[in-house]
Amino acid sequence: MGLVSNISADSPFTLDNIPFGVFSTKEDPRPRCATAIGDFALDLRALGQSGFFKDASVADALGQATLNTFAALPVKTRTTVRDQIISACKDDKVTDSCLHKLAEVKMHLPVAIPEYTDFFCSLEHCTNCMPITNSKVPENFYHAPSAYNGRASSVIPSPSLVRRPRGVYWKAGTKEPTYGLSQFIDFELEMGYIVSKPVPYGETIKVDDAPDHIFGFVLLNDWSSRDIQIFEMPPLGPFNSKSFGTTISPWVITLDALKAFQCAPKHEIQPLEHLRFKDVEHGTFNIKLAASLERDGKRHQICTSNLRYLYWTPYQQITHHASANCGLRTGDLMGTGTVSGDGKDEKTGKKFELGCLFEATQHASQPITLEGGGNLGYLEDGDSVILSAWCEDATGRRVLGFGECRGRLVGPDAPIS
Amino acid sequence: MGLVSNISADSPFTLDNIPFGVFSTKEDPRPRCATAIGDFALDLRALGQSGFFKDASVADALGQATLNTFAALPVKTRTTVRDQIISACKDDKVTDSCLHKLAEVKMHLPVAIPEYTDFFCSLEHCTNCMPITNSKVPENFYHAPSAYNGRASSVIPSPSLVRRPRGVYWKAGTKEPTYGLSQFIDFELEMGYIVSKPVPYGETIKVDDAPDHIFGFVLLNDWSSRDIQIFEMPPLGPFNSKSFGTTISPWVITLDALKAFQCAPKHEIQPLEHLRFKDVEHGTFNIKLAASLERDGKRHQICTSNLRYLYWTPYQQITHHASANCGLRTGDLMGTGTVSGDGKDEKTGKKFELGCLFEATQHASQPITLEGGGNLGYLEDGDSVILSAWCEDATGRRVLGFGECRGRLVGPDAPIS
Repeated sequence: MGLVSNISADSPFTLDNIPFGVFSTKEDPRPRCATAIGDFALDLRALGQSGFFKDASVADALGQATLNTFAALPVKTRTTVRDQIISACKDDKVTDSCLHKLAEVKMHLPVAIPEYTDFFCSLEHCTNCMPITNSKVPENFYHAPSAYNGRASSVIPSPSLVRRPRGVYWKAGTKEPTYGLSQFIDFELEMGYIVSKPVPYGETIKVDDAPDHIFGFVLLNDWSSRDIQIFEMPPLGPFNSKSFGTTISPWVITLDALKAFQCAPKHEIQPLEHLRFKDVEHGTFNIKLAASLERDGKRHQICTSNLRYLYWTPYQQITHHASANCGLRTGDLMGTGTVSGDGKDEKTGKKFELGCLFEATQHASQPITLEGGGNLGYLEDGDSVILSAWCEDATGRRVLGFGECRGRLVGPDAPIS
Repeated sequence: MGLVSNISADSPFTLDNIPFGVFSTKEDPRPRCATAIGDFALDLRALGQSGFFKDASVADALGQATLNTFAALPVKTRTTVRDQIISACKDDKVTDSCLHKLAEVKMHLPVAIPEYTDFFCSLEHCTNCMPITNSKVPENFYHAPSAYNGRASSVIPSPSLVRRPRGVYWKAGTKEPTYGLSQFIDFELEMGYIVSKPVPYGETIKVDDAPDHIFGFVLLNDWSSRDIQIFEMPPLGPFNSKSFGTTISPWVITLDALKAFQCAPKHEIQPLEHLRFKDVEHGTFNIKLAASLERDGKRHQICTSNLRYLYWTPYQQITHHASANCGLRTGDLMGTGTVSGDGKDEKTGKKFELGCLFEATQHASQPITLEGGGNLGYLEDGDSVILSAWCEDATGRRVLGFGECRGRLVGPDAPIS
């Protein structure tokens, strides 16, 4: 069917990509593994059943309802699978019966997520946020990646509906504790990455071996309730303010696909021993990021950013995570933390790389004026947030993309399934 | 065999108890469900296979390698099972082939734990600890239960070996960041409780319905690295300082068994709407707690305490947890947080209800003098910590107990399995 020649110029799912995801169709509601090519999901269970994969463990893994078994296979095996799929597409050897229009399939969580951890590793995000609550960048920031354990039960796939939560907060401008609907709902522009090779409890890893433990990347919207967060942070950190929903994009972009976009992080640092790379050039990835708002049918871009801005790279994050013997399991999800930068509009001097509304609107005190009218302080019921990410070549051409991470905030009692 | 008449006076596993756990034997290494009676584990898979339970779903659940399926059964069903077991024991209808000496079985985690949350709800613990790091009791403490998400991958059953972790901390007395072996390893005297009926993502629960969602209680030692914790706490709370090991006792004591020990909490408070009981008399349980150290073969009691001292009760904790829509899954583990009290020795004025070494030794500045010589500041490699708990009747007789929660701190590279 000319699968490759039909990939449109703006598709994120090019032959350089070959992401992995889990889908189902109306005709067959059993979730199974797929890749995405152009406008199509390629059913990898069906491909496996046709005898395409010589390795029985591969066919078995890709027939399952999550990618955990596949992600746990040796990296060499997974790379071979990707190469085989690329060849099959190039050589037009994919039968139509394995293909489903992306617009017609339902996407599921790509993996069963044993645990979810969220980092706080953008110096610009930290520098922008702390003064809003009269705090300073904590001294520990510069010496190790900061993180908190998130709530895996509330990680949901894009496109998702997220209910406005109730909670306890200080009534605006007072020290009066209140239980009620959160008034300040924010998004956070993050990426997520998924553990492949596990780390047994009691063991640690070396930072140079970190790539062996990462299956690939997704987009991640760490929905946040700022009033609940300000109330509950001291001294244990975020809890209910973060657990009403975390939306991830459904396609996992593998390290194989991202290899061409490896780069050094923006910040030059000399970290402590356990976080020191031998090859610092390849510490992170040049992945462009953007967040948009959809309100009343109109789309407004809120910010852009880049994964490489992070002060602590994903490899350093996961190494530090494992350094205390906790163990990591295949499917564990790590959020990079909000990725902000320090880009400014040349004319207005306004920063445009601010990865959440808390910093972009200074806690709603300086709302964003939307084109066509209206203001954006925090999110309103009915607002959708869309995150996107892509990698470019030297000429600025988009080589591959992550697809959408889309979520809509709805009222506290609106149906969500 | 006179099972009931042979229960020794000091056994925690009386006919009033009937805890649930998961065990295996040398002869049959497959983990399966059991209860404990006196010195014996009663194999509930074997009992089920003998046709003892009329309800096939019960026999199926108790034949599994974890108690998750059983815990998810309706509370009425679980109560009936307990009553049936009690009758069978009383009537001497348990065949010897279902019994295994407790001393000879291996205990496993009672449930697969999807997620682990740890609370911070003892006002006395908080009041004792905060000044040590020049902090005050945070204002939010009095208005809602504080908590952080813990790491389920490092929850292990008693008896356990826990490796001293490496991590990043400020070199003692300096602001020099260091990566190395933690110097200040502590225990925390807590209880844990396990979710039975799940709460779907996006839903909340009423505090009066909280008992429906709790399967039962265990002892929990929240091993803590104080140097790593002091380094990493601002602003996201505890992370690596808590994830090198969390030991729980293997027998789950059900709400049915604990019903006779219901009581009002120590602190009289008027909480916000979502945490207000209709029946405050029954907010918590009178469960006596103790922690001991074993060093060089000698046992030293470090402290005693009581679950009812908690400012926020387990029912309020779990209700607040669910209030933000995160969802709870069967098997989720909640730690109550360190349970301290304000009991003082009449003669010396010394407090003896201090649930961790951080408060008991004022961060090792006032070490405990051990009987027979030696000091206890923080834990040394080779030290064992043993938590215990029991419920008494009005005459002071121990009606039931929790068994031991035992863990031993070992060197960073010592074998642990």
